[in-house]
Amino acid sequence: MFNKKTIFLGFASVLLAGTVVAAPVHNTNITEEEVRKAQEAWGAALIQISQDYSEGGLAKAKETAEAVLNQAYGYAQGPVLFKPTLATGETTFRITQEGALAYFVGDNPEFGDSGFALKGWREYSFENAAVYINGDLALTMGHVHLINAAGEKTTVDKTWGFKKDDQGDLRIVLHHSSLPYSK
Amino acid sequence: MFNKKTIFLGFASVLLAGTVVAAPVHNTNITEEEVRKAQEAWGAALIQISQDYSEGGLAKAKETAEAVLNQAYGYAQGPVLFKPTLATGETTFRITQEGALAYFVGDNPEFGDSGFALKGWREYSFENAAVYINGDLALTMGHVHLINAAGEKTTVDKTWGFKKDDQGDLRIVLHHSSLPYSK
Amino acid sequence: MFNKKTIFLGFASVLLAGTVVAAPVHNTNITEEEVRKAQEAWGAALIQISQDYSEGGLAKAKETAEAVLNQAYGYAQGPVLFKPTLATGETTFRITQEGALAYFVGDNPEFGDSGFALKGWREYSFENAAVYINGDLALTMGHVHLINAAGEKTTVDKTWGFKKDDQGDLRIVLHHSSLPYSK
Amino acid sequence: MFNKKTIFLGFASVLLAGTVVAAPVHNTNITEEEVRKAQEAWGAALIQISQDYSEGGLAKAKETAEAVLNQAYGYAQGPVLFKPTLATGETTFRITQEGALAYFVGDNPEFGDSGFALKGWREYSFENAAVYINGDLALTMGHVHLINAAGEKTTVDKTWGFKKDDQGDLRIVLHHSSLPYSK
Repeated sequence: MFNKKTIFLGFASVLLAGTVVAAPVHNTNITEEEVRKAQEAWGAALIQISQDYSEGGLAKAKETAEAVLNQAYGYAQGPVLFKPTLATGETTFRITQEGALAYFVGDNPEFGDSGFALKGWREYSFENAAVYINGDLALTMGHVHLINAAGEKTTVDKTWGFKKDDQGDLRIVLHHSSLPYSK
Repeated sequence: MFNKKTIFLGFASVLLAGTVVAAPVHNTNITEEEVRKAQEAWGAALIQISQDYSEGGLAKAKETAEAVLNQAYGYAQGPVLFKPTLATGETTFRITQEGALAYFVGDNPEFGDSGFALKGWREYSFENAAVYINGDLALTMGHVHLINAAGEKTTVDKTWGFKKDDQGDLRIVLHHSSLPYSK
Repeated sequence: MFNKKTIFLGFASVLLAGTVVAAPVHNTNITEEEVRKAQEAWGAALIQISQDYSEGGLAKAKETAEAVLNQAYGYAQGPVLFKPTLATGETTFRITQEGALAYFVGDNPEFGDSGFALKGWREYSFENAAVYINGDLALTMGHVHLINAAGEKTTVDKTWGFKKDDQGDLRIVLHHSSLPYSK
Repeated sequence: MFNKKTIFLGFASVLLAGTVVAAPVHNTNITEEEVRKAQEAWGAALIQISQDYSEGGLAKAKETAEAVLNQAYGYAQGPVLFKPTLATGETTFRITQEGALAYFVGDNPEFGDSGFALKGWREYSFENAAVYINGDLALTMGHVHLINAAGEKTTVDKTWGFKKDDQGDLRIVLHHSSLPYSK
């Protein structure tokens, strides 16, 4: 039935030798390590914008913020689900990059933000309460802690959604940040 | 080269007839319509718990809440990323079903909640600011509006993550709810 | 602006202590290790059916084959894309479990198979040429080598698609097997 | 408890008017329609290469084949699981684009192909036996029918895996093609 002779000649050496070369693997999935690095990078970027503002003023801060948004968020691919900590009313949700930039560095009368990234942030840490990984998308929820130049601490309740793109870079497609509820 | 005769005989009728039977399709993806229905179902469930509390007291409300959690949330599959509107401090995140049940109907000294679903909710609506669909997972962000028996309106900023399970049912795996920021 | 006092009291210990408890992670993705084990299990199952046939006859072989199909294939969830090595003509594709069972153990006049798993298989190995992992789905392509009781070797070109279900079990949703092309 | 006044003012108009603007939706999933078009495009591309060979010789055919591979296959992103119909032995699997190009237009001594796309194909059709859609990946299995300039028909058993990339284009990441088994 089978053409056994041909098959035998072709693959016997493999069976006898038992040495199997590792096959190339293409894996599009997101990993916990990548998520952790993306969370660290977000904090480092926020502090960088704050420092650039201190040293180079609004122009430099805005330039850095634009670079951060281009790299770390998914606005180029489509709408981003972004509810910033201090956004409210008609401009609660910053679906476009313009709205996100306004939130971080202000200077946009349409949104009226004072510029969250300009508030002198110096230290950053996060605590994940739980992580959910599904394919190339990861969701995290937990506390983010920020310390400003005056040593004051702020904590927010934070949810992120990270999407791994075709180049292997993680982009924020979801970001819900809120102040802790005060009883 | 090819065994053309066999092939010709086998498939000529198909080529001539031009009638192609539709192939069965197995599609695991989540749809906008399913997301919308899941969002509606969440509101209906909240109002149901409130009504059951009015009519049958805490025992009935708790029974309904457990059924809702079993069906609409993904706690049986693993941790759920849940930050309820009024949760704060050590119990901000309700990763387990016990914590979620405590939030909705109270009666659990470990969490100290008054029972969000017992607050006499009568009407519910939502406005999505944006929706992100990725495979069997959908993310929504927007406003949820609630009206209680006294006619008072409450709005929250709400993010949901819905995962479609193997049976085709949507389960909430992410839920971040927060009061609008007050300047 | 922020209620800094509350936040300070609530989370200072975390920031000072620097001890972060690992967050629970829910990860639905398939891993290379899981894929490798599923590939090994397929071969072990084929040999088991062959051995059961030798020792217990058709009834026992069929019982084992049914158990294998129930566990290793995704027929309970929907159509499976299965093109068995020796299937041809009108019954080339075995989209239903009935067709797959007929292929492995014969005894079904609708399909006319002699029973691929009854051919006295004793050894099994595989060589992946490449692996593609995308979320909860993994695709593999490579050679599968089989040796029967007479010591004759057969090699086939094999493609598999494995889907990880909600319980964490891998199920074959795609299986294309073909004899090497003979020039 | 809630700041009801602010909320009332902010959203009453929405609740009263009942007109909800459609939210922007970002959907990365692959659709049946996209799969069908990609299957049609594959056949059109094959015929185009054949026609370009007839009219412009090998150079033109090769140019077209390279363009097809660049656009329709995922080699730029990583290994592609490709088992062409007439490939066998050491070069059964064409994981790299070089191997795929060699298969379609020959002219590469390392692979020794005569050039499958140069065989004068004029008509193309396909019949899906089943389709499996999982996120941004779709799997199809069925028959592909080809007719050459002499009117001879060839049918192959064909499996494809299509991955939708970040730009919304479908790319073949899996392709297993085999001649029907001859009893």
